[in-house]
Amino acid sequence: MIDTVRWVDSKKQILSSAPDKTRSLIPGKLRIIDQRLLPEKLEYIETDELETIFELIKTLAVRGAPAIGCAAALGLAAVCGKSGAKTRNAFIGELRSSAERLSASRPTAVNLFWALEICKIKIEVSEESDVEKLKTLLVLEALSILREDIAMCRSIGEKGLALLEDGKGVLTHCNAGALAAGDFGTALAPIYAAREKGLNITVYSDETRPLLQGARLTAWELQRAGVKVVTICDNMSAQVMREGKINIVIVGADRIAANGDIANKIGTYGVAILAKHHNIPFYVAAPYSTIDISIADGSGIPIEQRLSEEIRIFNGKKIVPDNVEIYNPAFDVTPAGLITGIITERGILKPPYTASIKNFMKEKIKDF
Amino acid sequence: MIDTVRWVDSKKQILSSAPDKTRSLIPGKLRIIDQRLLPEKLEYIETDELETIFELIKTLAVRGAPAIGCAAALGLAAVCGKSGAKTRNAFIGELRSSAERLSASRPTAVNLFWALEICKIKIEVSEESDVEKLKTLLVLEALSILREDIAMCRSIGEKGLALLEDGKGVLTHCNAGALAAGDFGTALAPIYAAREKGLNITVYSDETRPLLQGARLTAWELQRAGVKVVTICDNMSAQVMREGKINIVIVGADRIAANGDIANKIGTYGVAILAKHHNIPFYVAAPYSTIDISIADGSGIPIEQRLSEEIRIFNGKKIVPDNVEIYNPAFDVTPAGLITGIITERGILKPPYTASIKNFMKEKIKDF
Repeated sequence: MIDTVRWVDSKKQILSSAPDKTRSLIPGKLRIIDQRLLPEKLEYIETDELETIFELIKTLAVRGAPAIGCAAALGLAAVCGKSGAKTRNAFIGELRSSAERLSASRPTAVNLFWALEICKIKIEVSEESDVEKLKTLLVLEALSILREDIAMCRSIGEKGLALLEDGKGVLTHCNAGALAAGDFGTALAPIYAAREKGLNITVYSDETRPLLQGARLTAWELQRAGVKVVTICDNMSAQVMREGKINIVIVGADRIAANGDIANKIGTYGVAILAKHHNIPFYVAAPYSTIDISIADGSGIPIEQRLSEEIRIFNGKKIVPDNVEIYNPAFDVTPAGLITGIITERGILKPPYTASIKNFMKEKIKDF
Repeated sequence: MIDTVRWVDSKKQILSSAPDKTRSLIPGKLRIIDQRLLPEKLEYIETDELETIFELIKTLAVRGAPAIGCAAALGLAAVCGKSGAKTRNAFIGELRSSAERLSASRPTAVNLFWALEICKIKIEVSEESDVEKLKTLLVLEALSILREDIAMCRSIGEKGLALLEDGKGVLTHCNAGALAAGDFGTALAPIYAAREKGLNITVYSDETRPLLQGARLTAWELQRAGVKVVTICDNMSAQVMREGKINIVIVGADRIAANGDIANKIGTYGVAILAKHHNIPFYVAAPYSTIDISIADGSGIPIEQRLSEEIRIFNGKKIVPDNVEIYNPAFDVTPAGLITGIITERGILKPPYTASIKNFMKEKIKDF
């Protein structure tokens, strides 16, 4: 698969899970694909600088809710791995301050806060006083988040596979694929699973303005994997639905509220309405870590507003006149009522979501 | 107003209607704003070359159903104005062949065929045998189409004004404004009329991928006229509707079938569904010449498919990987059932459209 987020240890080994011998784990670096350059160039960035990691997340060099979580955890481990702290307390102080900085990079993806929180708690509850050992523990925790993410993607793929049949058409929005997660991705996981089974699926990929994650990333990774993909502009999805080309819509999610409302890339809400109008099932694929039961419904999810220049300037060319106002919300909320099911690593949640999400979270909590 | 399409006579006078003295009318040229360069540059093109005019229409240097009709008529007059034909028959032969070529430039806009047809018929039914006089007659006919278009835009503005109130928000898609017609445009005509009355209207303008007519053209011309305009990406229209910012949707049309189905820029159909979901009235503004009663319903309207490069490459940068398939329909059909009303120069047509369009066309035909 595509190695979107990885750890590079002190011997330059590239890791996606904890190694048998942990001696060379630190100092190490976060390694990501620079998605800003795709599809023209495949380039990697390795770093252990806090402000660089902050910028990489903020400018969407790494994006997609699960990938942001993994990158934040590994990034935090890289930054803290070179700490000069002499005591456990000093180290934990630095850890908290770095985690706080990283959590401000994107406001909507709950996985970001969740991954940073898990790392912090792991260190805080450990009784280790040796700073070097704490550093190793932190990398191991971050790698365990990545490994779990990879496993969750595979499970989502298996569960979602039941919704696909040979010859069917799937519409997806933005990129919730391998480039958005550790491995198979979320929304694209059932498609990769279908590919492994030899099913022919055609994916219609909304280009997803303004940053074109669908055109640049979804098309790139599906083509690489040998899946047939057709790129359309966002305003063409109603037409392809009307032409009978779409049997199912599958999208990812950046945050899921306790009632099943979901926040995802701007445009998702509109696609859900169009799917309903055409009687096409609309599914959300997301791992456990995307669910935020502290938020009762979608109205409580903060929506990131991004710079107007993302829309005004397109590849260096001005497409909206100066001084014309621009509105650029990065996400929207799709109400639970428009969602046919939520594909998770444990199976497909169905309405009423308040009950099914509650049960699902109870089961998960037992695992800890 | 904006001088989107004009005639330049042999004395370099710029005309939007027939002059009192016709002596210097020929040879003359079609003069258009090169809309491919907006909003960065306002440049005009003057030409009397058939293939240049064909290309200008095909590449959307001039676009918008009414403007295409006017440009085709004036372009035809310019091309035929330099004819070396010695006889009426030879002249009519050239006229027919040039009209046929121009009618192949865009397949969906009925105004194109209509304007060329009117010009041809006018010459064919005249009993004039002097070729120079036929040339002048042709320019006069083309100028009368332009003048009538300007008058129709103003009437649409007046009729549509009744739908607007101070402080309201309007969503529009693509550009059906001054740059798409002789004058006020169609969808934007009620907004310009409201502006003249001193009403404050906020227009939300979908950027309209792939060619960004909403971002480049609608925002440009409304800002120039002092109307408040907010540009959004196509996939944000559901969100602004949900936020209560939109009180009415007004779009143009490239062709209207006898039952009220309309073809318009790709994305219009989706916006109509979103408007219905949010209980927002959805209006189409179009002049008489857009109605094609020879077509029973939307399924009979040919939909132009455009080159995939319009989506794949933006400003020289590849945004979709090579070999990834692209689907690029230029138009879609919005079924009559989603349309609250059709704003014409004679008033607002209401469902059932089969009856209201039939009556409207009967009235119009009486005028001839």
